[in-house]
Amino acid sequence: MSAISLADVYRARQRIEGRVCRTPLVQSPALSRIAGVPVHLKLETVQPTGSFKLRGATNALAQLVEEGATRVVTASTGNHGRAVAHAARALGMEAAVCMSSLVPKNKVDAVAALGARVVIAGKSQDDAQIEALRLVREEGFAFVPPFDDARVIAGQATIGLEILEALPDVATILVPLSGGGLFSGVAFAAKHINRDVQTIGVTMERGAAMHASLAAGKPVLVDELETLADSLGGGIGLDNRHTFAMTRELIDRVVLLDEASIARGIVHAYREERLVVEGAAAVGMSAVLDGALHDARGPLVIVVSGCNIDIETHRRIIGAS
Amino acid sequence: MSAISLADVYRARQRIEGRVCRTPLVQSPALSRIAGVPVHLKLETVQPTGSFKLRGATNALAQLVEEGATRVVTASTGNHGRAVAHAARALGMEAAVCMSSLVPKNKVDAVAALGARVVIAGKSQDDAQIEALRLVREEGFAFVPPFDDARVIAGQATIGLEILEALPDVATILVPLSGGGLFSGVAFAAKHINRDVQTIGVTMERGAAMHASLAAGKPVLVDELETLADSLGGGIGLDNRHTFAMTRELIDRVVLLDEASIARGIVHAYREERLVVEGAAAVGMSAVLDGALHDARGPLVIVVSGCNIDIETHRRIIGAS
Repeated sequence: MSAISLADVYRARQRIEGRVCRTPLVQSPALSRIAGVPVHLKLETVQPTGSFKLRGATNALAQLVEEGATRVVTASTGNHGRAVAHAARALGMEAAVCMSSLVPKNKVDAVAALGARVVIAGKSQDDAQIEALRLVREEGFAFVPPFDDARVIAGQATIGLEILEALPDVATILVPLSGGGLFSGVAFAAKHINRDVQTIGVTMERGAAMHASLAAGKPVLVDELETLADSLGGGIGLDNRHTFAMTRELIDRVVLLDEASIARGIVHAYREERLVVEGAAAVGMSAVLDGALHDARGPLVIVVSGCNIDIETHRRIIGAS
Repeated sequence: MSAISLADVYRARQRIEGRVCRTPLVQSPALSRIAGVPVHLKLETVQPTGSFKLRGATNALAQLVEEGATRVVTASTGNHGRAVAHAARALGMEAAVCMSSLVPKNKVDAVAALGARVVIAGKSQDDAQIEALRLVREEGFAFVPPFDDARVIAGQATIGLEILEALPDVATILVPLSGGGLFSGVAFAAKHINRDVQTIGVTMERGAAMHASLAAGKPVLVDELETLADSLGGGIGLDNRHTFAMTRELIDRVVLLDEASIARGIVHAYREERLVVEGAAAVGMSAVLDGALHDARGPLVIVVSGCNIDIETHRRIIGAS
């Protein structure tokens, strides 16, 4: 039924070993006091590209290398794009990242600095996606989707493996919920090691495609709205193959947050945990601060997914600037 | 000649395994560009108490437990005090931390929150130290010095072991230099695995006791001056037993920094590495930013020792508040 097996997760771990950080799991005294149970943070912020996305991208590209592929393309300008560029360089592959001409220069530069070829195409994300598919069709590139892909899900699932190994008694795991690649990977690994683990998805109140799709019982479109948790935006694909079904099967509960709550999580991370986190990575902490987990069993683990926030935005939120 | 052997470092690692984080070693693209060689950061900021001190304290206390001790005392109000308190709780020991009545409430609370007994004694650090020694003499407490102790040095040395294991080709290691526990531990492990590794101590221009002692050829007193790198202040002890001799033998070079440079390191860490670091932990990055390492061989590793900075001070430095 699932796109992956636990053996796939162990294979993914073997492939990414040495290329991706086995990240720390650190107890938070401040959040533990608030939640009334031990709360631990899984720090994907220390990954080389600043987010968990490197796990899935590295696993997918390593499999492509095994199959003899030499060129890879994606259309993401964010954490997935960076991860593909970084993994391609590490594995000796050629990488192309397609972007519209409207993508800000700093994002273009960040991908180029990782050694990827930036392909500017059209004026929208759709145009960039069309160009990526043209490279696949006409120039023999392999396409690596950002989340709805068994290799990517297995890569993200290594986080679940690491959590259960470090803390076998974990009772509840909070995972940022977006396209469902991170959520379904982590939840799959955790529940297949201990089916009693509760897995909770956390996302923003407005524009959360997976939450709307779960409510509708099928993948649906949502309007994309501006949010501090910008990495959680975007659709899940009306032709979603894996992550919708997996998330529906594995999720115990969804927690929805407003923008003020996401900002509180960012401030808490800075002041109390000494962490710089992006909005999408703050949501688990926000949920605890909001009291949304008051009845959760502990120990509780929060996946802190990345640190790639615009630094001026961060300074503004922490009352700087 | 040395207080420790490489076998002691492996024993220390076995003792602290599972209680102390095996920290990430992450490449810094920004610093690599500036230095012209690959630069990696060893992130002790993610340790449970926010600094490397937990390694030495955990190793020392674990040895005390093996010897049947049940009570431990220290007079440090900073990272060592926190580390002893945390390690004692983890190992089921009773911990007392002696402080003068002038220690600010937030530091008192931080140690108390870790489950240690706070003993207020007199109006100076010397008074606190005298009370600690009274507890040793009259109440059977074991004293754990902050740096000049073979068990503590062996614990800090596990950082060197982890660096060489993760990056066997490392050519240069930058270590914050204070009492010399961290420096001599890291340098000892690194040079005993590869004698060609260059080990450089980095500290502040004014009030650096180890640097003055190296220059004088023997331990000397220095005036303690206010600095952003406050964890690097304090004397090395006129009766220094281990760290002065070890540091003198192992150090290839000292880099001295002014306060503006330390602040630049803190800002760089925040803006480019997305890290909140204390002044003492910023010094290696500052040294690279200053161009002091322009002739160093790479790959270069910087030990980023901790994150326990007063958060309002941090906000001020990054142009917040």
